[in-house]
Amino acid sequence: MAKEGNRLDPWVNTYASRAKVMTASEIRSLFAVASRPEVVSLAGGMPFVSALNHDIIGETFSRVIKENGNVALQYGSGQGEVGLRELITELVTLTKVQTHPDDVVITAGSQMAIDLVVRVFCNPHDVVFVESPSYVGALGVFRAYECDVVHVAGDEFGLNPVALAEAITQAVKLGKAPKIIYTIPTFQNPSGLTQDDKRRKQILEIAKKHNILIVEDDPYSLLAFDGTIPRAIRADDAENVVYLGSFSKTIAPGMRVGWAVAPHGIREKLVLASESAMLCPSNLVQLAIGDYLKNQPWLEQVKVFRELYLERRDALLDSMKLHFPVGTTWTVPLGGFYSWITLPEGFDATAMLPRAVNALVAYVPGTGFYADNQGTRNLRLSFCYPEPERIQEGVRRLGDVIRQEIELRDTFGVTGELATQSGDMSAPDVV
Amino acid sequence: MAKEGNRLDPWVNTYASRAKVMTASEIRSLFAVASRPEVVSLAGGMPFVSALNHDIIGETFSRVIKENGNVALQYGSGQGEVGLRELITELVTLTKVQTHPDDVVITAGSQMAIDLVVRVFCNPHDVVFVESPSYVGALGVFRAYECDVVHVAGDEFGLNPVALAEAITQAVKLGKAPKIIYTIPTFQNPSGLTQDDKRRKQILEIAKKHNILIVEDDPYSLLAFDGTIPRAIRADDAENVVYLGSFSKTIAPGMRVGWAVAPHGIREKLVLASESAMLCPSNLVQLAIGDYLKNQPWLEQVKVFRELYLERRDALLDSMKLHFPVGTTWTVPLGGFYSWITLPEGFDATAMLPRAVNALVAYVPGTGFYADNQGTRNLRLSFCYPEPERIQEGVRRLGDVIRQEIELRDTFGVTGELATQSGDMSAPDVV
Repeated sequence: MAKEGNRLDPWVNTYASRAKVMTASEIRSLFAVASRPEVVSLAGGMPFVSALNHDIIGETFSRVIKENGNVALQYGSGQGEVGLRELITELVTLTKVQTHPDDVVITAGSQMAIDLVVRVFCNPHDVVFVESPSYVGALGVFRAYECDVVHVAGDEFGLNPVALAEAITQAVKLGKAPKIIYTIPTFQNPSGLTQDDKRRKQILEIAKKHNILIVEDDPYSLLAFDGTIPRAIRADDAENVVYLGSFSKTIAPGMRVGWAVAPHGIREKLVLASESAMLCPSNLVQLAIGDYLKNQPWLEQVKVFRELYLERRDALLDSMKLHFPVGTTWTVPLGGFYSWITLPEGFDATAMLPRAVNALVAYVPGTGFYADNQGTRNLRLSFCYPEPERIQEGVRRLGDVIRQEIELRDTFGVTGELATQSGDMSAPDVV
Repeated sequence: MAKEGNRLDPWVNTYASRAKVMTASEIRSLFAVASRPEVVSLAGGMPFVSALNHDIIGETFSRVIKENGNVALQYGSGQGEVGLRELITELVTLTKVQTHPDDVVITAGSQMAIDLVVRVFCNPHDVVFVESPSYVGALGVFRAYECDVVHVAGDEFGLNPVALAEAITQAVKLGKAPKIIYTIPTFQNPSGLTQDDKRRKQILEIAKKHNILIVEDDPYSLLAFDGTIPRAIRADDAENVVYLGSFSKTIAPGMRVGWAVAPHGIREKLVLASESAMLCPSNLVQLAIGDYLKNQPWLEQVKVFRELYLERRDALLDSMKLHFPVGTTWTVPLGGFYSWITLPEGFDATAMLPRAVNALVAYVPGTGFYADNQGTRNLRLSFCYPEPERIQEGVRRLGDVIRQEIELRDTFGVTGELATQSGDMSAPDVV
């Protein structure tokens, strides 16, 4: 086996086949520009961590190390610290999930839980069914494991069950192995949509009928603006659902702690896969989160986040109404971080991005949320991080950019060369 | 695709082919027993974190969060925090490695770095060359990616270059793709052996000649008992070596922070793979380690560890001389955590383990450090965690067990049924 690469990378022909798809999207360089303070970034899904009480979190860490340093600083269990697993079983009852600490696996953020489930279930070309659009970070995992991703059409309640059943039948007809239905039923990233209870039951029935695992990714449900937390799919079935959660949106992403609630056999595989991937999650951070959950009014803090994000959502919706031209539509999220925008016919949101960044506003183009180049006319706007006045200013700038594109289109027929989107947009700055 | 599993795990026939090898070793249940306080465990490679100043570490975390909470608690860079990457470029000069922060990737412990390198390089059945014996956690990764592992014979300086060259030629002859030489040149886990400079150069030449990547895993080198830190292989070649390091042995494993120094093209792939696996490492922990490295006399702390581990190594060596029967041999490590024991002919260290645990002493059987059932007569003793008196007591107990086995052997011919070792022994409690 010769190393026959080029001067830029002598190893280029030596990599595993899965590494061939590991390429950075060209738009990532734009996000680097977008992080400059003069740019209003509606791109990244960064929680507003300034709203946390930093002193209390700092004291929590310092106390945990002083009182329990020999455990906090040591290697821990591959499955995660049992005290935190117990607290997670209490926490998930907020979405009506009943489970046991034995069936909880703690991971370095729920991104890692997605990675581990796919590692355990998917051979190359196994089929994963996802929403249209779907979470960019999950698509990155499916890509890395060379899965075939099928985007199932949706409606105002998200994933359409009729289209899902048809897609499964189609995949089976083609001789493929359908393995996973990956869904974010509540305040979806990037669409902002939520499945109603009926829809959840229909999807579960289809999964059970076809023996396909549901991976229910649920990082946002505690951020329901009216305080009504939807019932998880996992609440109605413990055998066919792996349920993923995270502290990234309720406490802080800098902790890197998420979890999977899994049926017994799958849980066992996930622990072995996690030990192989990183031995164990950080005892220190797990103990600190456990201490914080036990001793701080953390649900009050979540309420603060909820109210803050609601105010920002309203700032986004109101200013879109004011500044976006006729023909532009958007979703109205009832919680979470995102609204999904559809531009008028003929638009290319990827081609428009450099002009938007030039006008000092950034977003994530819709194609990043598809594995198959759909989403050209779409973009995702995040309202979680900028203050309301900044959101209004950003939307005003973006409205100007869209109107200029319309003028261009009316003069020249198209708004610019249709950009072919290639490479992985999954990155911490676009989650 | 039907879910045709059994009642224990209905998903058993649905997993990816790589998951079929994800099975827990039966000896893992013994380690659970071995963690009881009355058992002297010479099994796990847990650093003696009690020797750290917990107050100072606690204050470091609390200060970082108070002063820089908006960064510490937020998502960070997939490659890792640039300030810490700069500090790592300084740190690695202790092993004569010259690099740039751009070529450092920070991971959740160096276990994850092994996982990412293999993810980027290895298709199923690609060949990885390793020492005889090799690190159980790395073998777990190679297993998870379905690599073919070839154990290369060694001598008192570790990996034998003649045997390495022969093994490569043999693999090529068989039409296989040799991808990685995985080595721990300094104070190897589990053998305790160290390659001298000549040996390192020979191995590097062979790797270059055959265009095979060296993965140089170097977690222990700062723990050189006489303070003479060996020169890394990476110090002599920046193009053919990925160099892995960790804070787990110099600060604390509870941090879960390691790193890879990699050639440019490989580094780019590693970052994309890491973002897919976990988005980013914890900003909080990275900033705290950076603060600790900058503001604390951390090399003094490493010296404390070194002296402490030297005293424990001596306790181990002296008591083995006193208590182990003739015909038992062991390595004399010049740093790190481990000595590798060879029992008299006919012994089975796996079969002996339950009797040892019954006698209140634990070790890791040698077969765990081989992918091919070698190591039956071997076991690894770790001297890092128990106090010297406990080490002496543990070795005394183990000597008794070995002598009883000899009596059994002399009476009945064998020491018990030869245990077939199957399943993955890689776990936080045996690293």
